[in-house]
Amino acid sequence: MMKISRLGVIGAGRIGKIHAENLATRIPGVVVGAIADVNLQAAQEVAERLRIPSVSEDYRRILADPSIDAVAICSSTDTHAKIVVEGARAGKHIFCEKPIDYDLAKIDTALDAVNKAGVKLQIGFNRRFDPNFRKVRQMIAEGRIGKPHILRITSRDPEPPPVSYIKVSGGMFLDMTIHDFDMARHLVGSDVVEVFTSAGVLVDPAIGEADDVDTAVIMLRFANGAIGTIDNSRQAVYGYDQRIEVFGSGGMVQAHNNTPDNNVYTNADGVHSAKPLYFFLERYMESFLAEMRDFVKCIQEDITPSVTGMDGRIPVVIGLAARKSYLENRPVRLSEVG
Amino acid sequence: MMKISRLGVIGAGRIGKIHAENLATRIPGVVVGAIADVNLQAAQEVAERLRIPSVSEDYRRILADPSIDAVAICSSTDTHAKIVVEGARAGKHIFCEKPIDYDLAKIDTALDAVNKAGVKLQIGFNRRFDPNFRKVRQMIAEGRIGKPHILRITSRDPEPPPVSYIKVSGGMFLDMTIHDFDMARHLVGSDVVEVFTSAGVLVDPAIGEADDVDTAVIMLRFANGAIGTIDNSRQAVYGYDQRIEVFGSGGMVQAHNNTPDNNVYTNADGVHSAKPLYFFLERYMESFLAEMRDFVKCIQEDITPSVTGMDGRIPVVIGLAARKSYLENRPVRLSEVG
Amino acid sequence: MMKISRLGVIGAGRIGKIHAENLATRIPGVVVGAIADVNLQAAQEVAERLRIPSVSEDYRRILADPSIDAVAICSSTDTHAKIVVEGARAGKHIFCEKPIDYDLAKIDTALDAVNKAGVKLQIGFNRRFDPNFRKVRQMIAEGRIGKPHILRITSRDPEPPPVSYIKVSGGMFLDMTIHDFDMARHLVGSDVVEVFTSAGVLVDPAIGEADDVDTAVIMLRFANGAIGTIDNSRQAVYGYDQRIEVFGSGGMVQAHNNTPDNNVYTNADGVHSAKPLYFFLERYMESFLAEMRDFVKCIQEDITPSVTGMDGRIPVVIGLAARKSYLENRPVRLSEVG
Amino acid sequence: MMKISRLGVIGAGRIGKIHAENLATRIPGVVVGAIADVNLQAAQEVAERLRIPSVSEDYRRILADPSIDAVAICSSTDTHAKIVVEGARAGKHIFCEKPIDYDLAKIDTALDAVNKAGVKLQIGFNRRFDPNFRKVRQMIAEGRIGKPHILRITSRDPEPPPVSYIKVSGGMFLDMTIHDFDMARHLVGSDVVEVFTSAGVLVDPAIGEADDVDTAVIMLRFANGAIGTIDNSRQAVYGYDQRIEVFGSGGMVQAHNNTPDNNVYTNADGVHSAKPLYFFLERYMESFLAEMRDFVKCIQEDITPSVTGMDGRIPVVIGLAARKSYLENRPVRLSEVG
Repeated sequence: MMKISRLGVIGAGRIGKIHAENLATRIPGVVVGAIADVNLQAAQEVAERLRIPSVSEDYRRILADPSIDAVAICSSTDTHAKIVVEGARAGKHIFCEKPIDYDLAKIDTALDAVNKAGVKLQIGFNRRFDPNFRKVRQMIAEGRIGKPHILRITSRDPEPPPVSYIKVSGGMFLDMTIHDFDMARHLVGSDVVEVFTSAGVLVDPAIGEADDVDTAVIMLRFANGAIGTIDNSRQAVYGYDQRIEVFGSGGMVQAHNNTPDNNVYTNADGVHSAKPLYFFLERYMESFLAEMRDFVKCIQEDITPSVTGMDGRIPVVIGLAARKSYLENRPVRLSEVG
Repeated sequence: MMKISRLGVIGAGRIGKIHAENLATRIPGVVVGAIADVNLQAAQEVAERLRIPSVSEDYRRILADPSIDAVAICSSTDTHAKIVVEGARAGKHIFCEKPIDYDLAKIDTALDAVNKAGVKLQIGFNRRFDPNFRKVRQMIAEGRIGKPHILRITSRDPEPPPVSYIKVSGGMFLDMTIHDFDMARHLVGSDVVEVFTSAGVLVDPAIGEADDVDTAVIMLRFANGAIGTIDNSRQAVYGYDQRIEVFGSGGMVQAHNNTPDNNVYTNADGVHSAKPLYFFLERYMESFLAEMRDFVKCIQEDITPSVTGMDGRIPVVIGLAARKSYLENRPVRLSEVG
Repeated sequence: MMKISRLGVIGAGRIGKIHAENLATRIPGVVVGAIADVNLQAAQEVAERLRIPSVSEDYRRILADPSIDAVAICSSTDTHAKIVVEGARAGKHIFCEKPIDYDLAKIDTALDAVNKAGVKLQIGFNRRFDPNFRKVRQMIAEGRIGKPHILRITSRDPEPPPVSYIKVSGGMFLDMTIHDFDMARHLVGSDVVEVFTSAGVLVDPAIGEADDVDTAVIMLRFANGAIGTIDNSRQAVYGYDQRIEVFGSGGMVQAHNNTPDNNVYTNADGVHSAKPLYFFLERYMESFLAEMRDFVKCIQEDITPSVTGMDGRIPVVIGLAARKSYLENRPVRLSEVG
Repeated sequence: MMKISRLGVIGAGRIGKIHAENLATRIPGVVVGAIADVNLQAAQEVAERLRIPSVSEDYRRILADPSIDAVAICSSTDTHAKIVVEGARAGKHIFCEKPIDYDLAKIDTALDAVNKAGVKLQIGFNRRFDPNFRKVRQMIAEGRIGKPHILRITSRDPEPPPVSYIKVSGGMFLDMTIHDFDMARHLVGSDVVEVFTSAGVLVDPAIGEADDVDTAVIMLRFANGAIGTIDNSRQAVYGYDQRIEVFGSGGMVQAHNNTPDNNVYTNADGVHSAKPLYFFLERYMESFLAEMRDFVKCIQEDITPSVTGMDGRIPVVIGLAARKSYLENRPVRLSEVG
């Protein structure tokens, strides 16, 4: 008979709620034994709704609870690395939202702690679990497009985050493109060796004043010779634009946007259909559930997570290189950065 | 503060499980207080997983429980009408899976009991709540296509049910097309007055030996002058084909199939994309949740269900007329049947 | 070396001009040696532009010209049967625009004359040569969809013809649906045995006053058991809607509309693309050229035309049956009509 | 009454034949008065088929003929600049296939001669006249997407040209991407100021041995701040891939591929549709006709061609910069090149 795993959720914000709900209601073989948030009321509300027995302001209560097998770290980014270290030392398996940190030294400290403790660490690059993208990856892995030659990721947000967020987020390359960097190396199955960035402030001058960009195209050179581009905008007026195309010696595979319906309306003005889903939680709902299922499976079957700590580190390196390329207007090799 | 409604679920088969799970985990303001099934073990398994406190072999235990506000009738079709009557007399609001019965007299008895008791009755025509079709209906209601002229429903199953099922189901027009009959009148916003059926046995001779057909096109005349066709097949080798097109004086709206992903693969052989979702539970997952949300809302806000008892009766009449038309090879008016 | 065939074009109206131009400029191995029209000026204008040496008001001049191998009859419908007879007697091969006539006796007289003379006769059911539909036919013939079970033809005009035309055209079933009747039997590869029509006047009451309908769905029973529907409207506000779907035991093939461009425009209101081509001459431009190429090939290689005189007769029979079914509100077998 | 213009066609190869045929049979108000080719037989065959009265091995016969108003230069690229100069001196209006030359000095000499003579010069960037791309340009010009932010051109050939061609063609950036460079600046409505190229030999090592690349992504910076990418491959196994996407502050417009039919085939393996048209002559057939119509109109109405000599020069500059960027692995400003 299957062992029931007990998980603790650290952070009861937007993403913490989603993971808590998925764990509590949609994943067999697991119970949420505890939840913590510096905002106690937020944690209490989630606990009540999902009948989670233990609630606290302090995540250390969870780490100290011997009945808890694993934790999901969903707190603010600046606390991730520290909690990873403490969680590893407490012997808990760890699911950590991306990014571990924007500082490579802190990331390395965290990964060291995990290695020493021998616990499992999975990073929250949920998009790898999206049905569209997962199938793209699978087809490439099966050789359906031959050798990958050209990768193209379109990743545009429906609207910019508040400038206050941009000032602490690490900037667009680290708060937004980081998902695309992970997807790029995941899909191509080869590592990025050099990047070149062309970027600007075309959406909102306030973003420029906060020392960030809002529009960018980043060119990627992969170790296997493939070439990739990622294009980002902080504002696509038509919604959340999340597409991928990979072209290779044997064909091409594309992931198109998801929409709220599959209707087509035709009138004297033309043929009309639905815009992409607007909000990332709708767009990636299935992937949040699937990644957590995968994490629970890794714990229960003692297998290596499919998104490792090193997979969490590399996109940060690419993001730092992309920023450096933008500032210096030249191609930057990843080895220059970290 | 919102009152919590307590529901009982009668029947723990395929559809009963879905409703129980939706009620227990995804609909706020409601708890599942009891479940019953003639197969006690089936009921127990669901109860354990969803922490339902009361389990029984006998649905009458639920009807006798004064703490239960409403029941969802998910038992076998031949028991629906009887349980509706008993449930109404017990003062429970009722959600009843379609069809109420295949016998108009039994349906009328059930509807009478509901009327006398003054309880709410909602029939499980879940497809009305499907996001694609709901938007089609909404656009028609808003006049976006002008006056409806031509309706076309494509409704093809991925594979035939067992012949044993066909022998007791009332036949294709009553077990399968009944959903399409409901959709037809719902979308056009006018009632069917006459039908003409052309049908045959093209898929499996065993279906013909069971006195049913497996392929049919049914033409519908509506009171408002619109003309409709429904085409059915028991076997579309490519999956579950569920499309709608409504053409009017001002334009056309179509609902296309849902697919497991939005990818496109292009190689030397052509351009390839995903087949329709194969299984009705996947295809209509969202609609099962939405219809139950709607039922709970009707109870809690004391409003009339959007799918009434009479909406449950009329498609049975159309189905009987369609069968008669097939047997006599002539157009049949609904007034001839019931 | 290939013999150059000399063709005469009878009729310099809309369709006559198209055939003359295709023959004169795009089909190798043929010259247009003469053109005739009761409107001499119309014939002269075409002749001048295309350098056709002989022009006349009287088609009999063409029939009497021994240098002419074949004629394309593009005059008004009421003259077709008569000119076919005379052309056959003059030993000319004949391409005749559809329909030969609306009177079966006149058609039979014409076909007799052709048979006796041993000349070739091809009827202008150009849509068989449309690239979309030709490929549909080819795939069905290759068994790609298995046995055909359900055929669906969508055939809607962008706007009604003048009521004056409707009064002499034979009505919608004979002036418009006739193309669809031909396509139906051509695609399914089996003959229609019974029809049932549901029709009405939903577009313009003046059409009803002219004793015609403007909206119809016609159900077809084929000898091989397949079932088909054709839906027609005199007015699709979005353009010329010409689609086909054939569903069979092994799959489905669909022909979608052609559009002036393949662009997609996405903004805050939705995703927008081009309407179908509006005008039949644009939509079927390629098919007019291809059918004439085929006719020239039949003459030069002495092979049987792919659209025979009998192929011209049968759709008239189906049209007469469809009208009878409408008037009597009952299924009508083709054997009742002719 | 409209004056009939007399044109001479210089070069009877693949593209010369197309222009000759379009001029002779599909464009009113113009006659082809002469044709010349160093391969006299090729010229004679075209002349016979299209009834062109004068044929020669020597294009100077055409330039010396006072009845000729204009010439279409379709000879080999290395002769373009020289014939432009001589044609201008002879007072002929000139349509010249792209590129004028790969040497900027020769281009400048040719443009000087044209300016001095005051004749019209139109360069054969036919894709501007493609219905898809023309509409994209029109929508951008109308402000339908707001300000352009990100341009993406996908331009992949079905198969590589012979290596012998690559050795004399100027390489991929000048023989293939040159069309995309023109399209980029045409669509964005702003000039390219800097390029960065990432390229490699992924298709065929023989191409690398000929000192060229077969796969490239070129990033473009525009004067207005927009960023563009062009991706090229010498070999897309699925055909000729010609797509465009332009994203802006108010929306996005995309041009998808053209296909030989609009059919969809669905079976147990998936949903299948047609590949892009394989051959550039099919794909751009309409644009060749439209550009020549436009040229004839410019002559007859005395207006400036829409694709000027300077429009012919700039893409060569971009191509040279792209090549330099590839060789030096750094962004290159156009001002460095010419």
